[in-house]
Amino acid sequence: MKIAIVGATGAVGQEMFLCLKKKNIPANKIEFFASSRSTGKILKTDFGEMEIKEFSVEKMAEFDFVLMAVSGDFSKKFSPQIAEKSIVIDNSSAWRYEKEIPLVVPEVNFHKAKNAKLIANPNCTTAILAVALWPLHCEFKIKKCIVSTYQAASGAGQPAMDELKTATEKYLQNESFVPENFAKNIAFNLIPRIDKMINNGYSKEEMKVVWETRKIFDDESLKISCTAVRIPTFRAHAESISIETEKEISPDAARNILQNAPGIEIVDNPENFELPMPLTATKKFNCEVGRIRQNLVFGKNGLDFFVCGDQLLKGAALNAVQILKSLL
Amino acid sequence: MKIAIVGATGAVGQEMFLCLKKKNIPANKIEFFASSRSTGKILKTDFGEMEIKEFSVEKMAEFDFVLMAVSGDFSKKFSPQIAEKSIVIDNSSAWRYEKEIPLVVPEVNFHKAKNAKLIANPNCTTAILAVALWPLHCEFKIKKCIVSTYQAASGAGQPAMDELKTATEKYLQNESFVPENFAKNIAFNLIPRIDKMINNGYSKEEMKVVWETRKIFDDESLKISCTAVRIPTFRAHAESISIETEKEISPDAARNILQNAPGIEIVDNPENFELPMPLTATKKFNCEVGRIRQNLVFGKNGLDFFVCGDQLLKGAALNAVQILKSLL
Repeated sequence: MKIAIVGATGAVGQEMFLCLKKKNIPANKIEFFASSRSTGKILKTDFGEMEIKEFSVEKMAEFDFVLMAVSGDFSKKFSPQIAEKSIVIDNSSAWRYEKEIPLVVPEVNFHKAKNAKLIANPNCTTAILAVALWPLHCEFKIKKCIVSTYQAASGAGQPAMDELKTATEKYLQNESFVPENFAKNIAFNLIPRIDKMINNGYSKEEMKVVWETRKIFDDESLKISCTAVRIPTFRAHAESISIETEKEISPDAARNILQNAPGIEIVDNPENFELPMPLTATKKFNCEVGRIRQNLVFGKNGLDFFVCGDQLLKGAALNAVQILKSLL
Repeated sequence: MKIAIVGATGAVGQEMFLCLKKKNIPANKIEFFASSRSTGKILKTDFGEMEIKEFSVEKMAEFDFVLMAVSGDFSKKFSPQIAEKSIVIDNSSAWRYEKEIPLVVPEVNFHKAKNAKLIANPNCTTAILAVALWPLHCEFKIKKCIVSTYQAASGAGQPAMDELKTATEKYLQNESFVPENFAKNIAFNLIPRIDKMINNGYSKEEMKVVWETRKIFDDESLKISCTAVRIPTFRAHAESISIETEKEISPDAARNILQNAPGIEIVDNPENFELPMPLTATKKFNCEVGRIRQNLVFGKNGLDFFVCGDQLLKGAALNAVQILKSLL
């Protein structure tokens, strides 16, 4: 089996390679591709050095799987052609809302990936939300879901992570700093807008959570409202989640369900400060779920909980590799 | 008029002094008090140097107002005695839940302070929430309120602010760091627990928001659920708020009401990244309110918005000084 990673210079592309290795995907060949700008560049990884080759549609034909860690525009242009010969798993938002393209979180709907030539990987916040929400939805039927996010710099790519570091250093040195990757200085700040605004007062990031969760769950009746906020952390997204369910739900019942659910680690001993946190969730495959308690507004049909998952892993690279694995 | 500030070595105590000055409170004498440990220490402020004197109940008798920026235990012990001779405005949580003690946010219920000898200042998150929620409650009657917070280090005092700085420096220098003021390393992290846990799965900080908002609004029917999260910012708290109202509410109607409400600055042009943020809300008297939009779960009876207010100001010192001013 041969696998190509397109967009290998970015944070997600490189994590895809690491996930393929760590998940023991039996590949004879894994190759890195990017634009001509990066051709010939050598990337040092935990699994040896990798040379970046120049991307072309033709070259993709020899690969069984092509993992795309590229922009939506790039994917729009090339993915359909590549998908004629190879199976494409695309991390961009280009195909997520096309009815005939499956949008897959393997813990929820891996069966949708079967026989597809082009498979969309969801938005990072959605993937992390879905993995925690789905087992509860199956058991208690979620009617309403209100989410506030605490999103890391990595969601905006490696340059944004670098900028968080530089901006913080400048702040501590009392030096001025002009942001480039974020619209405002992210050092010791938060920015309650991610992605562009759309005409209902929500950001696209917030609506991605609504649109994508409904599609992945195949349930258009699910009501979701989201507030997406960038905070100064590096690579794990956290989410404060309130749900109202059709069936009565208790924290213990929810904990029992989540304990046996795939992709989840219960970290819920707040007395001892065992809590879902970027400090512990970073570089972890499973998403941490904790602070499970009865919601005080929805009463016996309501639950509050807190989730933290690595944005580059479950939020991107890991999910793509899990899709690939589910097809083997 | 003579005013004493007890606990003047802390962040809140010093902000109380600055607020008295900036709000032009006509005091003949303002004096700083603290424990014997700090006696004789000179504090440099924007309005000159202040010497710290040793606190005793007897010394308080000559002051018309005593502003307490002390621990709950200290206030429990001394405030009733001081209140026999002076008017005490207490920032601790010691008296907030006593039925006969008024809990006051001047924009909401300044009339409750009248004739009282001991007045409680609310929890910081509550004060910032209340100032934004009250005008909407008056017009649309809020039935349900779900809040997720983004709380700054200052809520845990000056040492916690210093620790955020040091922990971040150590992180950037790849040096290890053992937290003292926070239970976990706060550098580039978040901690979804503030204050101790109580037996319903909520933290005391979260329940303070529930208990205090109901008392300030004099409305026990108001349903509130809160998730309180510490993030690595210095001194402005942010809150993501979803409400369901009895009367239909629209973003425009809400904006009109909030525009004319005291203590609020509408910062709501997300297209241009004019958003409530610690970057802009820090050291500002008014609380910033933005991201006003229809909530997608509660529909025509629901609103989502985002608030950011200075924890040391509206969340503590400013509110106390506003109470004092309302009594003049």
